[in-house]
Amino acid sequence: MRAGVLFSGGKDSSLAALLLDRFYDVRLVHAGFGVGDAADHAAATAEELGFPFERLTLETAVADEAVARMAEDGFPRNGIQTVHEAALEAVADGEFDAVADGTRRDDRVPTVSRAWAQSLEERHDIDYLSPLAGFGRGAVDRLAADTLEIEEGPARTLAKGDYEAELRELLREAEGASLVEAVFPERVQTRVTGRR
Amino acid sequence: MRAGVLFSGGKDSSLAALLLDRFYDVRLVHAGFGVGDAADHAAATAEELGFPFERLTLETAVADEAVARMAEDGFPRNGIQTVHEAALEAVADGEFDAVADGTRRDDRVPTVSRAWAQSLEERHDIDYLSPLAGFGRGAVDRLAADTLEIEEGPARTLAKGDYEAELRELLREAEGASLVEAVFPERVQTRVTGRR
Repeated sequence: MRAGVLFSGGKDSSLAALLLDRFYDVRLVHAGFGVGDAADHAAATAEELGFPFERLTLETAVADEAVARMAEDGFPRNGIQTVHEAALEAVADGEFDAVADGTRRDDRVPTVSRAWAQSLEERHDIDYLSPLAGFGRGAVDRLAADTLEIEEGPARTLAKGDYEAELRELLREAEGASLVEAVFPERVQTRVTGRR
Repeated sequence: MRAGVLFSGGKDSSLAALLLDRFYDVRLVHAGFGVGDAADHAAATAEELGFPFERLTLETAVADEAVARMAEDGFPRNGIQTVHEAALEAVADGEFDAVADGTRRDDRVPTVSRAWAQSLEERHDIDYLSPLAGFGRGAVDRLAADTLEIEEGPARTLAKGDYEAELRELLREAEGASLVEAVFPERVQTRVTGRR
C-alpha cells in the first residue's frame, strides 16, 4: 500500500514516516508555495532518511487566505491550520492508498478532528493516518532522540521545510517585517539531519 | 526502551505491538482475572507473533465493580472501560518505560482521553502509547489483512484472550446466563493466529 506522508523535514513527520515504513511504501511529500528553499530543505532531509520524495505546490489562494488570517488574528494558528488542511486534501487527490501527517496527541496546531479525518477519507476513498496521534510530547522526544540526528536553532534561521518558513516570508511581503515578529514570536526549533 | 503492550490476542493489540516493535523492546501483557483460559489464548498468539509475554492478574474488586456495572447498565461499555483503566494502571506500575494498548481512532470502548493519558503518565512517570489512535477502522482492517493470519468466529466461542470472555463468565456466575446474552449480544469477532 502506498502512503503519502506530508513532510517538513522536522522530527514529527520524520518519525511518522519511520512508523509507517514497515507497513507501507512511504513517499514523503512536501506541500508548500514554492517560496524560498523550504522544499529543498525537506528534500535534503528526505534523502538523508532514505525515502522517495516529491514536491507539491498548493494553490496561491490558500496562501492568500492563510496570510490574511494570520494578519487579522495576530497569531499563526488558524493560518497554519488552513494550509495543513489544504495540503492533506492535495495529497489525498494523488495516487496514494493513504495520506499521513506528523500530528501528535498533544499538538494544538495543526489538529485533525476525527470528523474531519472521516470526511477526508470518504471524499477521497483513502485512509488518513496520523501515526503519532497516540504519542505524547515526551514519548515523541524520546523516540526522536533514539532514532534521529537533530539540529536545533532559532526558527527564524533554521533551514527547515515547514509551513512557517514560507508563511513568514509571504506575510513579510504582504504586511512588513514587524507584523512577522508579532505573529511568530522567536523560539527554538529543530530539524532532522539524518538517522541515528 | 521497554514497552508493555496490553494484549488480548486480537488484531488491534497485535498491530499495536508490531508498530512499536521497531522502536521499543516490546513485551505483551495479558491482564485479566484468571477466569477460564483467556490468558492461555493470548499467550499462544504472543508465541506465534514472536513476542515475550507475561500474565498479570487484576484485583478481584475490579471484576466485581465491572460486573456490577454491566448488570446495572444492561450493556458492557462502562464495565469494559473500568477493566481497561485498571489494566493500564497495573502495567504502568511495572518496570516499563512505556505502557501501550490497541485503542483505535474510531473505537467507542475502551477509550483513553488525552487528560486521562496525561494523568497516567504523570502519576507513574511513564509514557502512554496508543499506536493505533491515528488509524481508522478501514486502515486497521487493511493493515491486519496484510500482516496477520486471522480467524473469525462468534464471540461466544472464539478462543480469545480479551476482557469479554472473562467478563461473560463472571457475569454468568453472578447473574445467570440470560443476563449475559442481554449484555453481550452475539456478534462475529476475530482472533490472531499468526503473522503473514
